[in-house]
Amino acid sequence: MSDASNSRAFTFIGGDAGEWSVASQRTLLGEPIASVARIAMVPGNRSELLPGAAWALRGVATNDRYTTSAEKAELVNRQAPIGRAGATRAALILLRKTAAWWMLAQDQRRAILEEQSHHIAIGLRYLPAIARRLLHCRDLGTEEPFDFLGFLDYTPADAEAFDDMLGQLRATKEWTFFDREIDIRLIKD
Amino acid sequence: MSDASNSRAFTFIGGDAGEWSVASQRTLLGEPIASVARIAMVPGNRSELLPGAAWALRGVATNDRYTTSAEKAELVNRQAPIGRAGATRAALILLRKTAAWWMLAQDQRRAILEEQSHHIAIGLRYLPAIARRLLHCRDLGTEEPFDFLGFLDYTPADAEAFDDMLGQLRATKEWTFFDREIDIRLIKD
Repeated sequence: MSDASNSRAFTFIGGDAGEWSVASQRTLLGEPIASVARIAMVPGNRSELLPGAAWALRGVATNDRYTTSAEKAELVNRQAPIGRAGATRAALILLRKTAAWWMLAQDQRRAILEEQSHHIAIGLRYLPAIARRLLHCRDLGTEEPFDFLGFLDYTPADAEAFDDMLGQLRATKEWTFFDREIDIRLIKD
Repeated sequence: MSDASNSRAFTFIGGDAGEWSVASQRTLLGEPIASVARIAMVPGNRSELLPGAAWALRGVATNDRYTTSAEKAELVNRQAPIGRAGATRAALILLRKTAAWWMLAQDQRRAILEEQSHHIAIGLRYLPAIARRLLHCRDLGTEEPFDFLGFLDYTPADAEAFDDMLGQLRATKEWTFFDREIDIRLIKD
């Protein structure tokens, strides 16, 4: 396929190039992927592997799936964009949810995600320190190894806050619906 | 890209081949597409054009975006699959929603779609006569001309009921958020 990329598409290329140096790469659940030294985040939906690259993971920034208008107003009011000058630490979290999750109706998924797991509320507490780009892979039209690629950046001073946040999220009911999770920590050097 | 297709992906190929003969092709809103004589519905995410084909439109069957568990139970209980032996009439409805729609929060979109427009309730009244396959294109990762491809099939005796249903849907508030709509009627001969 030679089609133009969706303007909301981004690709993470793992290998020996890119502005992000890999500090750690940890498989929490499911199959690992090849360990890499550096990661590049590039615009577009790219599957071709550059020389020295081990993998390319693609996703699309899409419309809100669960956020209410009140929550959205608070998010928009408080959040910062990724790529701030001081944000030299980041995490790339690769996630896949179970078939059981995707079979649930919309109200059931919303109830687990927010009323029971407080996913949005937990994230709000860490704004604007933790900035996020969430990409969806499940409906790309190709078989993809993950459903979501979460990229989050922050200053070295906020690294501990980031771990707090992630620890809270991982203890939720929502997290029992993930069957693959890889946590890659990054440093911009 | 040489990736394997998502198993939920389908492609409609418009040209001079395929099991469906085009009875009419009408542009209700936005740019038209090339008129074709026949349409094939094939599994997979295919963009390559076969000889004699004018266009290929791809989409992915995905998880419910608005349906509650009560609504889903009723749908599952009453709906029939597409492809029944007597269902020799069909419609392929190509739709794109406005940027304003996609900027709305989840609860706002749900309220317009169901509480104000009764999209799910209207569809339920025509089950099992009208069977549907809804494909999403917006998050394929490539620039696509439509957000949704709706394929609906029915017997000749239910053709009038189908027009009733579509007339009701087109009069709703939800329909004011479409900026492109093409209605292609099909006969299996």
